[in-house]
Amino acid sequence: MPANLTRVALIQMSCSPDTQANLDKAVARVREAALAGAKLICLPELFRAQYFCQREDHALFATAEPIPGRSTAALSEVVREHSLVVIASLFERRAPGLYHNTAAILDHASTNPDNILGVYRKMHIPDDPLYYEKFYFTPGDIGFQAQKTSAGPIGTLVCWDQWYPEGARITALKGAETLFFPTAIGWHPSEKVEFGERQYDAWQTIQRAHAIANGVFVCAVNRVGHEHGDVTHNGVNMPGPGSHTPQDGLEFWGGSFIADPFGRILAKASHDKEEILYADLDSAEVETTRQHWPFLRDRRIDAYGGITSRFLD
Amino acid sequence: MPANLTRVALIQMSCSPDTQANLDKAVARVREAALAGAKLICLPELFRAQYFCQREDHALFATAEPIPGRSTAALSEVVREHSLVVIASLFERRAPGLYHNTAAILDHASTNPDNILGVYRKMHIPDDPLYYEKFYFTPGDIGFQAQKTSAGPIGTLVCWDQWYPEGARITALKGAETLFFPTAIGWHPSEKVEFGERQYDAWQTIQRAHAIANGVFVCAVNRVGHEHGDVTHNGVNMPGPGSHTPQDGLEFWGGSFIADPFGRILAKASHDKEEILYADLDSAEVETTRQHWPFLRDRRIDAYGGITSRFLD
Repeated sequence: MPANLTRVALIQMSCSPDTQANLDKAVARVREAALAGAKLICLPELFRAQYFCQREDHALFATAEPIPGRSTAALSEVVREHSLVVIASLFERRAPGLYHNTAAILDHASTNPDNILGVYRKMHIPDDPLYYEKFYFTPGDIGFQAQKTSAGPIGTLVCWDQWYPEGARITALKGAETLFFPTAIGWHPSEKVEFGERQYDAWQTIQRAHAIANGVFVCAVNRVGHEHGDVTHNGVNMPGPGSHTPQDGLEFWGGSFIADPFGRILAKASHDKEEILYADLDSAEVETTRQHWPFLRDRRIDAYGGITSRFLD
Repeated sequence: MPANLTRVALIQMSCSPDTQANLDKAVARVREAALAGAKLICLPELFRAQYFCQREDHALFATAEPIPGRSTAALSEVVREHSLVVIASLFERRAPGLYHNTAAILDHASTNPDNILGVYRKMHIPDDPLYYEKFYFTPGDIGFQAQKTSAGPIGTLVCWDQWYPEGARITALKGAETLFFPTAIGWHPSEKVEFGERQYDAWQTIQRAHAIANGVFVCAVNRVGHEHGDVTHNGVNMPGPGSHTPQDGLEFWGGSFIADPFGRILAKASHDKEEILYADLDSAEVETTRQHWPFLRDRRIDAYGGITSRFLD
């Protein structure tokens, strides 16, 4: 591959009730992507488990893990083996009673434990029917992050963050030229027919807009498949009170995509199948696009103070 | 029409070299829209002249006008006659040697001269081949603005502003529930075949994203037609040095559109014809959309300070 190109891979996968099986699958898919030439590989949000935030269950805190921990140890092996950068979204146990939705950025060039170059702790935490994340995740306290990886300058934001132009902007201002959004978003089965298409469209549109506004590549990677929120921990199924949610779970809509710095879709995955999505990103396109659409030049930083207000009434 | 609905109209028009003819046309189209039931009507950017920023010519400062002035006087007649709110984008002469690209918001319920409820002075000023606005327009110094009009709470931003999520966000935080973007954007004829579609698509995408991020209606109104930048002032044609630009002018791409608070297109105009674009906006949709997609609830205003930096290196 020409030196100016970096092959990225997004692992669109389904998650089973067995967390070890999910980790094994993730490692295998990362290896497969590496063998296909990818150097920068992103897993979906919280890929180790089914999306447990469909219910509020104290027992599920037991599935959180430290960073570094078992997941990063397993991934660091393939990271070193193939000289990779891998983004892994994990349920982080930071201290007793303090948990985050955290992305670990592993880089073979990093000498830290488990090759962890940096972490990002999800800043915007949702709370909606079947997405009860405020119960589990303390909002991030280290702000928006960019990393200079061996595969180029990147930034990671997680799922709900994707609806906030502020997060994308600050991450880009910190030097990220490719933004990753590990995601777990899906349809309520009862809503899909009426609202499904517009929901996916809005989700894609606002992330394409982050690419346009900032002149960066955007890579969104979602899980796929219908889940009732079952989770296995140490081999014991932990269905929580009521094994199935009354709304019949969530159908994760896949549709992972990669957009160029003007928001054009370079690659898009299906809505119902596991797949690895690839694109070869040309780092020169960031600067060329920004020269032709010089939005960063003309920002009115003297007039943006209101952004830090809740409302300006 | 039910009380919860407001009919908006966007006047997609072409502009001739004759500034008086353009004003007459604008007044006639506003009247036509009013007779069709519209209460909230927006004209395109700098509709009084052909897009003179295609060249840098000191003589063209003579076409600027005070606000209140001749244009607002003419429009205020139809505003009072039909109980309207009208947004008029004008080349404002604020003081000798100080000019702005300014939107005047006229409201029949306002008792100010010419029914001027408020003004917005374009904050982000472009400078690109054939868009030499930095030569003419001093950047706005009154920040982003929202107005409580008799037809609902609105905000106006102008053209290049549309590429900046910050402007839309602050305007929404000030209470605007419908954003207007009077615009003059077009294709370089030599680029249209290769880049035209993606340029229009990026333009529409980022504005739809403003609707989504903020849960507001977005109305973008563009001019249409091929122009070489000729301007007539007081009956004297002022073609400037070289009557035609070497690049053969600009083909304004029309394509005005109205999006709902989740970014869905409610109405879209053609790319090559004058027309009046209508939609009936339901003010209740703003709150309903924000309840289902509660982005404003979860903003991390403690972590957005970096937005006021040029770069975070």
